[in-house]
Amino acid sequence: MTTVSVEDVADQDRKAPGRPRDARADSAIIEAVLELLSAGQSADALSIEAVAAKAGVGKATIYRRWPNKDALLIDAVATMKGPLPVPAGESVRDDLVMLVASMRNKRMQQYGKVTACLLPELLRRPEMHRIYHGVVEPRRDIFRQVLRRGIANGELRADLDVELTMLMLSGPTVAQNMLHWNPNVPDEGYAEALVDAVLRGAAA
Amino acid sequence: MTTVSVEDVADQDRKAPGRPRDARADSAIIEAVLELLSAGQSADALSIEAVAAKAGVGKATIYRRWPNKDALLIDAVATMKGPLPVPAGESVRDDLVMLVASMRNKRMQQYGKVTACLLPELLRRPEMHRIYHGVVEPRRDIFRQVLRRGIANGELRADLDVELTMLMLSGPTVAQNMLHWNPNVPDEGYAEALVDAVLRGAAA
Repeated sequence: MTTVSVEDVADQDRKAPGRPRDARADSAIIEAVLELLSAGQSADALSIEAVAAKAGVGKATIYRRWPNKDALLIDAVATMKGPLPVPAGESVRDDLVMLVASMRNKRMQQYGKVTACLLPELLRRPEMHRIYHGVVEPRRDIFRQVLRRGIANGELRADLDVELTMLMLSGPTVAQNMLHWNPNVPDEGYAEALVDAVLRGAAA
Repeated sequence: MTTVSVEDVADQDRKAPGRPRDARADSAIIEAVLELLSAGQSADALSIEAVAAKAGVGKATIYRRWPNKDALLIDAVATMKGPLPVPAGESVRDDLVMLVASMRNKRMQQYGKVTACLLPELLRRPEMHRIYHGVVEPRRDIFRQVLRRGIANGELRADLDVELTMLMLSGPTVAQNMLHWNPNVPDEGYAEALVDAVLRGAAA
């Protein structure tokens, strides 16, 4: 029934191009892409025909919304990442814990498994870097802003390397999401443990 | 000519199974797997026929050396990683810099691009975890040993979380190798900068 109603809307929408895009068709299309990718489909192998069939819409409905497959894939990646986290803005340590915790959950692990295969493939094409960065950089900027706030308010050392510290906070989780979580590092309290280890330092 | 000679050896070897395995055939087969994976071939799509054709050997030559495709893929992954690094055993900081530097180079970036797609696919199959860990854990153990040495000799804090610190030192590089190196973090001095940031800590 959903399929039919989405196709109905797509048809009406074809008759009246001035109308706002239909959100149900958009999400049905994105969901179809993510299901195909989760099933192990590669970016190259993924066809607009297959997406249209799974979403229950016509190819024209997809092309009216996305100029090409790459744009659709990038929107699917952005959708998996979910909304940007919003720091509370009080304790820098607590904001960093929230940002790390937002990357360590089953949804982001599923995201990592799907995109581990997809992103390197997309990033082989230089024109994709700009689009990909449009998804990644806003999230990195939140980390950077919190770290700069910590430098400004004295919670963090004045000579802190913001980029490197961002990688120390995000890299371990990204790597584990793409491969597998380290069984020797418990989920419980992971974000607190990582942030405190980064803040405290390993030297005696 | 290489192709022919490798096949010749494979034939002799078929006639005299007691002889040592021919190293040229082994490396031609592993090279063929890596070339196919680098070209974007997925683990599922990779066929022993295609590997045999590219390596210039018969399928029997491959099956005499590897019981199945998974075993061959894991050997290819291990080969890409290269030999285990050997710490000098003097300064813990210098050994950590050497270990991180051994992960940040063009070869390991190529490894990351190839395995980003391959490993999650293999790790979906529980029986592959044990084999994969046979490749990864020996390298992680070198990190662990150096960190434990630092705890023992007082270079590192007594309450250090060894597993988490290992992830802080390896994760940022693994993640960047799979996706792309952060243009805001220079290659020059990367390993020193990461190790010193981990040792020193970010707190004021």
